[in-house]
Amino acid sequence: MRVNDQHYRTIWIDAATPEIIKVIDQRHLPHQFVIEELTTVDEVAVAIRDMHIRGAGLIGATAGYGMYLAALRAAPAQFMESLSAAGEKLKATRPTAVNLAWAEDRQQQANKTAEGEIQAKIKVARETAEAIANEDADFCQRIGEHGVGLIEKISQEITANTSRDTVNILTHCNAGWLAFVDYGSATAPIYAAHDRGVKVHVWVDETRPRNQGARLTAWELGQHGVPHTVIADNVGGHLMQHGLVDLVIVGSDRTTYTGDVANKVGTYLKALAAHDNGVPFYVALPSSTFDWTMQDGMKEIPIEQRDGGEVRYIQGLHEGALKKVLLTPEKSTAVNYGFDVTPARLVTGLITERGICNASEADVLGLYPEKAS
Amino acid sequence: MRVNDQHYRTIWIDAATPEIIKVIDQRHLPHQFVIEELTTVDEVAVAIRDMHIRGAGLIGATAGYGMYLAALRAAPAQFMESLSAAGEKLKATRPTAVNLAWAEDRQQQANKTAEGEIQAKIKVARETAEAIANEDADFCQRIGEHGVGLIEKISQEITANTSRDTVNILTHCNAGWLAFVDYGSATAPIYAAHDRGVKVHVWVDETRPRNQGARLTAWELGQHGVPHTVIADNVGGHLMQHGLVDLVIVGSDRTTYTGDVANKVGTYLKALAAHDNGVPFYVALPSSTFDWTMQDGMKEIPIEQRDGGEVRYIQGLHEGALKKVLLTPEKSTAVNYGFDVTPARLVTGLITERGICNASEADVLGLYPEKAS
Repeated sequence: MRVNDQHYRTIWIDAATPEIIKVIDQRHLPHQFVIEELTTVDEVAVAIRDMHIRGAGLIGATAGYGMYLAALRAAPAQFMESLSAAGEKLKATRPTAVNLAWAEDRQQQANKTAEGEIQAKIKVARETAEAIANEDADFCQRIGEHGVGLIEKISQEITANTSRDTVNILTHCNAGWLAFVDYGSATAPIYAAHDRGVKVHVWVDETRPRNQGARLTAWELGQHGVPHTVIADNVGGHLMQHGLVDLVIVGSDRTTYTGDVANKVGTYLKALAAHDNGVPFYVALPSSTFDWTMQDGMKEIPIEQRDGGEVRYIQGLHEGALKKVLLTPEKSTAVNYGFDVTPARLVTGLITERGICNASEADVLGLYPEKAS
Repeated sequence: MRVNDQHYRTIWIDAATPEIIKVIDQRHLPHQFVIEELTTVDEVAVAIRDMHIRGAGLIGATAGYGMYLAALRAAPAQFMESLSAAGEKLKATRPTAVNLAWAEDRQQQANKTAEGEIQAKIKVARETAEAIANEDADFCQRIGEHGVGLIEKISQEITANTSRDTVNILTHCNAGWLAFVDYGSATAPIYAAHDRGVKVHVWVDETRPRNQGARLTAWELGQHGVPHTVIADNVGGHLMQHGLVDLVIVGSDRTTYTGDVANKVGTYLKALAAHDNGVPFYVALPSSTFDWTMQDGMKEIPIEQRDGGEVRYIQGLHEGALKKVLLTPEKSTAVNYGFDVTPARLVTGLITERGICNASEADVLGLYPEKAS
């Protein structure tokens, strides 16, 4: 997608420096555009854990590239052990994100089938990392193609039945291209609609505590020229009560094969409000975000707890520099659950790279019959 | 209530300076404790509009004192016109808060019945302002006495049926003593329970955009020694899904006689989550917060829109000084609805100075039969 009218992905290797992974360090957005270089598994683990990069797809892609760096740096005598240790280290960085384990597993499988010398295995590791990244971008583009029809249909309905001509879409957190390799999941249908000339406007939940909405979604929509308005997370219910939201689209960090959706904390509250007001609530995800082993999201999906300091302090721009300010009394503590689970009963549909389906075991397995066994 | 172990109300007149109204300027909390002096109606209007003071009861009490200042400063020849103009000015400061009109009306009635010279009318205006403030404190204390039984009952149940002994109460915004003259509405039962030795712990919604929870509720609970934890507004649903909330108590800025509750934006989302998880959801309010003319809260209660800058910027402590930082991209706009309406169907009960009742017309008018006509 575009940054100052230049095309970027969120992660890449420059041809001249195959031993360096480049990523956009999202901690500095929207105020500064910083590219970070990662050269070791430890640096990759820190970048994932401390959220230099984040988002379901990008976490998976970064873990894939991290496994390539592990292969590149491993001592030949401990090659397999190094890869296993790297995989464990990467999987431990973000417990809720299923894409981590998915990418690590895919690298391990590729490594097992790679034949010959260590150089061949390194080559396979790099090819696998790039395949994961390319597939992520491709799947997100397909999500856009499948989802854009929903927006076009609503656009036709409101144009025919109301005095409005703009589709109001609410999203939570950042399931945009910054959360993937390109396009995004929740944003892919929005970008596709905007590019086709359908009038859209996005309500951007700021998404406390880390404000991925206010910082990242608002920034990338702005870079692409999509009209949007930032709102406090508290406001979405009021907007839905008053007919100001036509559609909710969010992403997911892990979705059970039964349709329960773990996503950034607060998603469940918006799903309840959408349900209470008859607003369609869609979840966009590539199949790498499905957990094919879990049946009950509420009971089984681990919910990451992060440092309470992320609630007590916030960073923003003050006189041209990034400053961190304390929001609470010095002595007050905070807890920081990163995700919540929206039960399938509140989800209108899932938008995947293979099409749209109901959030139910039968329909999910109908789209992915190879997972039915 | 206590500030550094000294007793304070939120608004008062020192005996030596009867022409000065003193208030705690809440914009500086929790980092600085600042007392502001108000001497004109214009200063009072700014203090209400720009939220030096806020909260249903305190807005009413401040408007009451503002009318006293209007009487004190009026030119004798335009006494009645000055009072009317002051009333209109004060009522326009915060459209959702019904206590403003209630206090202004009470002063106008008192003025009409006051006999004799202007000095006598000024004396009545001061007595009326003080009566409004004293009644607010008294009513909040009674709310505490009626509501504490709910907490004691839950305490007995969890002690008997679980391995826990602490009642977890979630509150949104600040309906504490800082929002009234003393005690608070939502916090009054909590303070009463804590003072009786019932183990309580409060989940404090930070309450974006102005963070009245993180700044004010956390501060006053801390000053009183009540255990509490600050959370992002997004987190309450997850806590309720996992049995970590036993009771929700919030305040109100306007409640219809049918039980629809306007309160700080985001309250509706918590009410939905409480309903979905079988958590009791109570609203604490003195009768000055009822609107006896409104039947349908969603359609009739005006919802204040404030400056989007309150969403785009936030203030906090940085190296010992208060600093305001920008949270969004420079070019992104924000909207800022101050309140939402929680329909009566989601409210378990109303805690008033006369007792607890269901959120229904029949039960509200049962407690306030003099309003039934």
